[in-house]
Amino acid sequence: MKTAEKMNRSALSRIALFTSGGDAPGMNAAIRAVTRAAIAANLEVIGIRRGYQGMIEGDFQPLYASDVSGIIHLGGTMLRTARSNAFRTPEGRSRAYEQLKNAAIDAVVVIGGDGSFRGAQEMSQEYPVSFVGIPATIDNDMYGTDYTIGFETALNTVVEAVDKIRDTARSHGRIFFVEVMGREAGQLALHSGIACGAEVILIPESNAEGGKLHDFLKHGYKNKESSGIVIVAEGDESGGAMKIAERVRLDHPELEVRVSILGHIQRGGNPTADDRINATRMGVAAIEALLAGEKNIMIGIARDKIVQVPFKIAVKLCHRIDEQLLDIQRLMNI
Amino acid sequence: MKTAEKMNRSALSRIALFTSGGDAPGMNAAIRAVTRAAIAANLEVIGIRRGYQGMIEGDFQPLYASDVSGIIHLGGTMLRTARSNAFRTPEGRSRAYEQLKNAAIDAVVVIGGDGSFRGAQEMSQEYPVSFVGIPATIDNDMYGTDYTIGFETALNTVVEAVDKIRDTARSHGRIFFVEVMGREAGQLALHSGIACGAEVILIPESNAEGGKLHDFLKHGYKNKESSGIVIVAEGDESGGAMKIAERVRLDHPELEVRVSILGHIQRGGNPTADDRINATRMGVAAIEALLAGEKNIMIGIARDKIVQVPFKIAVKLCHRIDEQLLDIQRLMNI
Amino acid sequence: MKTAEKMNRSALSRIALFTSGGDAPGMNAAIRAVTRAAIAANLEVIGIRRGYQGMIEGDFQPLYASDVSGIIHLGGTMLRTARSNAFRTPEGRSRAYEQLKNAAIDAVVVIGGDGSFRGAQEMSQEYPVSFVGIPATIDNDMYGTDYTIGFETALNTVVEAVDKIRDTARSHGRIFFVEVMGREAGQLALHSGIACGAEVILIPESNAEGGKLHDFLKHGYKNKESSGIVIVAEGDESGGAMKIAERVRLDHPELEVRVSILGHIQRGGNPTADDRINATRMGVAAIEALLAGEKNIMIGIARDKIVQVPFKIAVKLCHRIDEQLLDIQRLMNI
Amino acid sequence: MKTAEKMNRSALSRIALFTSGGDAPGMNAAIRAVTRAAIAANLEVIGIRRGYQGMIEGDFQPLYASDVSGIIHLGGTMLRTARSNAFRTPEGRSRAYEQLKNAAIDAVVVIGGDGSFRGAQEMSQEYPVSFVGIPATIDNDMYGTDYTIGFETALNTVVEAVDKIRDTARSHGRIFFVEVMGREAGQLALHSGIACGAEVILIPESNAEGGKLHDFLKHGYKNKESSGIVIVAEGDESGGAMKIAERVRLDHPELEVRVSILGHIQRGGNPTADDRINATRMGVAAIEALLAGEKNIMIGIARDKIVQVPFKIAVKLCHRIDEQLLDIQRLMNI
Repeated sequence: MKTAEKMNRSALSRIALFTSGGDAPGMNAAIRAVTRAAIAANLEVIGIRRGYQGMIEGDFQPLYASDVSGIIHLGGTMLRTARSNAFRTPEGRSRAYEQLKNAAIDAVVVIGGDGSFRGAQEMSQEYPVSFVGIPATIDNDMYGTDYTIGFETALNTVVEAVDKIRDTARSHGRIFFVEVMGREAGQLALHSGIACGAEVILIPESNAEGGKLHDFLKHGYKNKESSGIVIVAEGDESGGAMKIAERVRLDHPELEVRVSILGHIQRGGNPTADDRINATRMGVAAIEALLAGEKNIMIGIARDKIVQVPFKIAVKLCHRIDEQLLDIQRLMNI
Repeated sequence: MKTAEKMNRSALSRIALFTSGGDAPGMNAAIRAVTRAAIAANLEVIGIRRGYQGMIEGDFQPLYASDVSGIIHLGGTMLRTARSNAFRTPEGRSRAYEQLKNAAIDAVVVIGGDGSFRGAQEMSQEYPVSFVGIPATIDNDMYGTDYTIGFETALNTVVEAVDKIRDTARSHGRIFFVEVMGREAGQLALHSGIACGAEVILIPESNAEGGKLHDFLKHGYKNKESSGIVIVAEGDESGGAMKIAERVRLDHPELEVRVSILGHIQRGGNPTADDRINATRMGVAAIEALLAGEKNIMIGIARDKIVQVPFKIAVKLCHRIDEQLLDIQRLMNI
Repeated sequence: MKTAEKMNRSALSRIALFTSGGDAPGMNAAIRAVTRAAIAANLEVIGIRRGYQGMIEGDFQPLYASDVSGIIHLGGTMLRTARSNAFRTPEGRSRAYEQLKNAAIDAVVVIGGDGSFRGAQEMSQEYPVSFVGIPATIDNDMYGTDYTIGFETALNTVVEAVDKIRDTARSHGRIFFVEVMGREAGQLALHSGIACGAEVILIPESNAEGGKLHDFLKHGYKNKESSGIVIVAEGDESGGAMKIAERVRLDHPELEVRVSILGHIQRGGNPTADDRINATRMGVAAIEALLAGEKNIMIGIARDKIVQVPFKIAVKLCHRIDEQLLDIQRLMNI
Repeated sequence: MKTAEKMNRSALSRIALFTSGGDAPGMNAAIRAVTRAAIAANLEVIGIRRGYQGMIEGDFQPLYASDVSGIIHLGGTMLRTARSNAFRTPEGRSRAYEQLKNAAIDAVVVIGGDGSFRGAQEMSQEYPVSFVGIPATIDNDMYGTDYTIGFETALNTVVEAVDKIRDTARSHGRIFFVEVMGREAGQLALHSGIACGAEVILIPESNAEGGKLHDFLKHGYKNKESSGIVIVAEGDESGGAMKIAERVRLDHPELEVRVSILGHIQRGGNPTADDRINATRMGVAAIEALLAGEKNIMIGIARDKIVQVPFKIAVKLCHRIDEQLLDIQRLMNI
């Protein structure tokens, strides 16, 4: 068992762990994996509650194997999360460091998105703390990893919601503009659009799709019999589903247009199998990396293999989408 | 088998069937039940597509037992639905009657809500057509029936959505204002609120709940640890979740307030077991009523028994809610 | 608020609460409701862990309002459950009574099925303890109540499972014999069979259905194109799905026959909206009954109203099923 | 649009398409993708119903873009599937070839598992027919592809079922042996076991796990408080969940042991987002391959890239599992 061997040759004795930024399904699975992999390597584990804010306030709790029992399938995060303005100030980070030092914490695993990793990077430049990150965000917008925890669950939540909306669209012969999350990234929109067989997908990464909508409204949606689903990424330049629907209503008063903004249901729910498995894989890899002396890196999964990506690269948000998927989407809507 | 006996003593030979108004999960189960119960009684069945509009246009199709196979579990309506302005005019209804007469249709089963039944009532006063109605609306706002098709599925869809939102609310210590459908009725809000353990439920049928929100914001939501779910019925006088959240943000800038408007996901999805069973019971009862010579009545379920309610009573929208449930809700939030 | 008034006029000061027998989804919602309704009436609440066995061992924990927070939507039971042979002996019940007396417990709410209520009845005849029961079993086989906690969730679990199996049955042109739980009762089989549009339903309460299967196999299942679902109640005299499928294979070697025994997935899962709401209603009603001086009764719901049923009547297991549903089922399979 | 370009330079004019072997969720999404990608390349598409048996019988139907509308989210296969003994004989294949020739079919896409591909390989050696395969089996046991259609949906179905069973296991302090499908492969067992946090996973690919079970029963399952989930692959040498549970009952009469054989629910249900997306990707790639003159290959996905694998390699069933996942599983159960 190579993993266990590596684990016994480290100078570490106690690590901390926290979740930060928006919650994502699978964070609990990652907490469980980090905790148990650390304990298996004879490390003590401290959970920091409420992200960087809790670090500043010293809101710590020891974590034992049994504390993370029965959480692998739960949405949200048992350590809770928060945004911290205080941590953005030198005073805040100074207090945070004091708290870590007082608790004799050698290294920290941070589970979150780009903002969380930027905070870790900044603190590590000022103080002798080793951070390793695990990417968790439904937006799937980190550089260097194909996958972030929560993306797949959110994707399936969107797909199930659109399946329901399709029932109504078909029954009424309506066009629905469905807005999905993703900040600047169109990943969730693109993948859910293909999985739902959406007629049009509007994402910030591609301008060409606007013409597609125009064609669909003019030619594709021929008569009252047919219906349509247009997926709109919240970051698309069109300004969101509400605005684009307004414009379409003006140009095509004959069409029955409706809007659905899926909102926060996309963040919650029990994680899918793969979100649990990948969270577990990355949690173990984070401990292995710390034991190997790594720091200021994000664990990622690229082409289905565990990789390590320096924070400064990972936080360059990744706006590239799979062009082939767009190509395929057009073929499917002949 | 009493049902079959009754069925053989009727003068009817051909009936029509359509869905009308907003779609509701379970409409397909009702279509199946009406069709098969009619065929079992040696009636011919004509499906009218797209509601009253299809009646005017003569958009008819014969329905056989096999046509309604494999649909009991599907959301939406295979006969589609529409709103018809033309039917509101005497000319429209005249053309609709001609179409029925030409197709030798003796009696019609209408599956829909109050607007659909008002149309049936109006037409039956002008022309010799017998209508029997089956209530299908997620709002559960018909008078004389405890139950309308689709309500229970919508209720469970809301509850599953709020379960997901609760994950995020807990993780961040936020208050969510979740707006649910129901037009003027607070049924969906009240039942989902109790099932989700919501802290506050705002419905049009009760003024007292506003004070409840005030208390909760002032005392109940004591610190950053706690979170809250406030369910807002779309018909509540507060003006919807968005407006009330704005006011709360002004009065309580220290709170993290979020809004989720569940929207059209509430109308779709595979019907629950009870929506399928009750749609089947009411579909059979509708054919039995027609065979017994009844007309201008809605089939309902009251205290778990099939009842018949004259259209003119049924369409008095029912705003009464179960006061005991409100009472219970308060007890649960001590 | 009548409920609160009643609650303040009681001599009770401390109650206990436990779950017993097979677990059922919604037990946690009932635990929450009993606890909070009791606290609202200024009662102290003691949770007994692991049913009668925990009562004998004094495995008690105080329950506060916050202890039952965030459990309304969870399957299983936070107080756990067990079967106790010791409680069947006079010595066991004697020790159980000592434990209650030592803990100054005046009255007990028992959440479970017929075995649990028989135990309560027996103990109440020997010792001065007041029991009130809340029926919780997926079998829905209690006398005097239309509803037991967990039945509706189990019903929807079965329906979703059969919807999946239907995919395969259709794709292959197969007949599936699906065995569902219910002990001696065919409730779960009958309701799920109608909701799934099963071709045949075999339940212990009706002999006529065997002939139905024979007809279906001979005439209904005409060719390789068609498929079929036969729901078999575990208590049916046919001896279960496995045995009946064996016989069918012998008689009809030309048919592709498969068996699926749904098993324990029927007991778990998040409760449906109605299971949560009804568990909450019955939990509150149980406390109201204790405050009103009632004892040795089960709370039930009949025709959608809360009722009180003496234990000795409730435990006469109810084998009656709704004949009309069987009638309807036949109509649907013309 | 490179895909479309390639597509216009082919000598093909008409292709056929069928599903074969056990059904898998996502087959319909693949049918849709193949059909539409073919039509986009100006090919005519013939659907063969009921697999090789339908090929022999000439059970063909033309497929247009609208025929595959509204099926992407449905389980099962609209073309149905069957096992054919006749196709294993030279006479059967001869008749199958006549049918293809009469229908002027140049090339065939086969969606199925190893048996289906063996049949294609055999026929292509005897007759001038080009086959391209798309792997669809919940077992995920094909060589050369990381992924087969249906695996991910089955995985999530298993995980949701075990989440429910865990409710009961915890409430009663029981050990459940849950048997999952997979024929000779332990993929479904291994992945679901990690996603569910199973205490032990028994798969045919690893002998070491038997000792793990022994340790768990002796030391891990210390007292009545704890519960356990053991996932058993149907192909494991232990002889299945039923047999192993019997042995455990003999050795550990003090334990409450239960068995659940998940059975056919694993094959059905609406496909997950990724099963739909990957089925779509592979469907398009199959048409691209045919247009490029490829034959006797299976389309696969390896390290998230589309690959082509000769049939003769693909059908070497793949029993290798990710050793790292086993390693991780052990760490998680310290």
